[in-house]
Amino acid sequence: MFPAFDSVGYVSPQTIAFDSPLTFASGATLNRYDLTVETYGELNAARSNAVLVCHALSGHHHVAGFYQDAPDPAKSEGWWDNLIGPGRPLDTRKFFVIGVNNLGGCHGSTGPSTINPDTQRRYGSDFPIVTVTDWVRSQVRLADHFGIESFAAILGGSLGGMQAMQWSIDFPERVRNVLAIAAAPKLSAENIGFNEVARQAIRTDPDFHDGHFYQHGVVPKRGLRLSRMLGHLTYLSDDLMGEKFGRSLKGADYKFGFEPEFEVEKYLRYQGDKFAGYFDANTYLLMTRALDYFDPAQAFDGNLAAAFANSTAKYFIAAFTSDWRFSPARSKEIVSALLANKHDVSFAEIESVEGHDSFLMPIPQYHALLRAAFDGIKV
Amino acid sequence: MFPAFDSVGYVSPQTIAFDSPLTFASGATLNRYDLTVETYGELNAARSNAVLVCHALSGHHHVAGFYQDAPDPAKSEGWWDNLIGPGRPLDTRKFFVIGVNNLGGCHGSTGPSTINPDTQRRYGSDFPIVTVTDWVRSQVRLADHFGIESFAAILGGSLGGMQAMQWSIDFPERVRNVLAIAAAPKLSAENIGFNEVARQAIRTDPDFHDGHFYQHGVVPKRGLRLSRMLGHLTYLSDDLMGEKFGRSLKGADYKFGFEPEFEVEKYLRYQGDKFAGYFDANTYLLMTRALDYFDPAQAFDGNLAAAFANSTAKYFIAAFTSDWRFSPARSKEIVSALLANKHDVSFAEIESVEGHDSFLMPIPQYHALLRAAFDGIKV
Repeated sequence: MFPAFDSVGYVSPQTIAFDSPLTFASGATLNRYDLTVETYGELNAARSNAVLVCHALSGHHHVAGFYQDAPDPAKSEGWWDNLIGPGRPLDTRKFFVIGVNNLGGCHGSTGPSTINPDTQRRYGSDFPIVTVTDWVRSQVRLADHFGIESFAAILGGSLGGMQAMQWSIDFPERVRNVLAIAAAPKLSAENIGFNEVARQAIRTDPDFHDGHFYQHGVVPKRGLRLSRMLGHLTYLSDDLMGEKFGRSLKGADYKFGFEPEFEVEKYLRYQGDKFAGYFDANTYLLMTRALDYFDPAQAFDGNLAAAFANSTAKYFIAAFTSDWRFSPARSKEIVSALLANKHDVSFAEIESVEGHDSFLMPIPQYHALLRAAFDGIKV
Repeated sequence: MFPAFDSVGYVSPQTIAFDSPLTFASGATLNRYDLTVETYGELNAARSNAVLVCHALSGHHHVAGFYQDAPDPAKSEGWWDNLIGPGRPLDTRKFFVIGVNNLGGCHGSTGPSTINPDTQRRYGSDFPIVTVTDWVRSQVRLADHFGIESFAAILGGSLGGMQAMQWSIDFPERVRNVLAIAAAPKLSAENIGFNEVARQAIRTDPDFHDGHFYQHGVVPKRGLRLSRMLGHLTYLSDDLMGEKFGRSLKGADYKFGFEPEFEVEKYLRYQGDKFAGYFDANTYLLMTRALDYFDPAQAFDGNLAAAFANSTAKYFIAAFTSDWRFSPARSKEIVSALLANKHDVSFAEIESVEGHDSFLMPIPQYHALLRAAFDGIKV
């Protein structure tokens, strides 16, 4: 049966307009913006059962369910569909779940590919640099729109987990549970370095045109493709790649040339080409920069515990053994800062081979822990 | 005093012509080729004290000493100068040391930027794909040129270590000691993946012109720059980058843009720009492909021990704790295969923070072990 009995089924996005100005950390202002969202389940009368799901680098609002009008509906599932549905760990019989495309995104929310009302051309590189704190402030208005005073939980993986943490720092009274998966308290120099290579690939593509490629009728596909190939290398683990591809050849023997010889080359090119076909280059730049800038301890002289001092949420922190992008050691830094405040925190280090991407996988122990965490939330 | 008392001092390269055809593993043939070399110390009468130093990805024949006619002679030292000289671990009072630029290189030996006598234009992408076995065969002729029947030792780090090992497999009677540092028995899927991203950066640069950019008066600098930035990320360790750069800002505060904010961004751009200014793009492609193809066990159904069965050399294998490109575990695979043959092998796992680049550093324990290894060699 399709969709499965425990799926949220067919879903539709909606776009919500916000008409009062939003000023960014950089000082820039947007006079108005849209956020595109999807919701699953029903908001209860007390409006106390809402869960916000924040997305990572290339994510969006389509977190669960399917699109009936997709070319192949069965392949249109949301990026965290395995987690969300009636009877799934994040149970939509209990919770009202909101997925949101971040400001600066390229899936419906106002972003670089939106027409700037002031100039009547697409924002391009005129779109403000967005930080995690900016996103949280834009999402607070989303909560207001739905009449949600406090989220039962805010959940995210990677950059999404950073947003969930930032919510509890900036608006402690508006979130009761934070679930931050495969995240870090800030990027390392190596993390920033990988982001910078990806950005330079895009920005030095002759088709980038300083971020205003839309008017030239081109897309910096070469740069986007390289960014995504590199991204995939850092999301996966050496072990998983070994298992998945090893040194398997595409053909029977070496062809002695630069066309793909090894399966891994074919895989990376495929992923790169696919991504370059739909993702906005300026959005990719903004998302990686938001990662670089995230550092809640910065305003507290580098003291992460001080950053969390006023938060009142209960925390669920999880990390994966094979994740070398944001390793379990990075999550433990978060846990230590929370414990220093005597906050209520649970931590799980999950065995996995899928690297950073593990947070998207239905790993039984991981999903069982998420289920227990959500079951324990009073609404 | 410059040069230092234990330096080989001022040196000069020489270029040696080989006029009989060389057929490559791919089946391609070069009718003639040049190899550019430097030598340090004196070949003894028995010609038994010769040491060949093989280079890695972006190396060359200028291994030790200085160039008197360089713009700044004090900054012209060879890439492994700290190792080689009268009184240094590889002591030129005892040994005759040869540094060679590999075939396909861009520092004097015949390579893609050489004029092809058949077409009177630069080879460019018409230059044959070169493998480690091809290099070894070209270097055998170099030994013949010097009248060296058997090398006292062949030494190399990374791709250079792979050449040293291949010598002992293909020409066991011509090498008595193999010193392979920070090497691996073959690349992992992840290793190949990083190479492929670098290659795609070069090959999709519009200035690459399918490898014949020379005729267009341009250089695919964007691609070379990205390759080198990415390379540096994989040569260093997360820890070293943390120590060296952390999240240090270039300016006093965030500027909210895409110009370098963090020291690591500035460093990577600098390294990329520098490399793009002198290295040949086709050579970079060839060197990475030689790495991908290296797999001496392949001809033995994946049995590495069988590949080493006929070798008679004594082996010195070393790896570095912080090297995540070719980790100590990869060196241990080599050691196991050698031990399975009851070959004479010593192995050192050296504590370091410099990542893969450690093999170039004068780490005291590492250099002491190399000194002991060379001291123990009878000539």
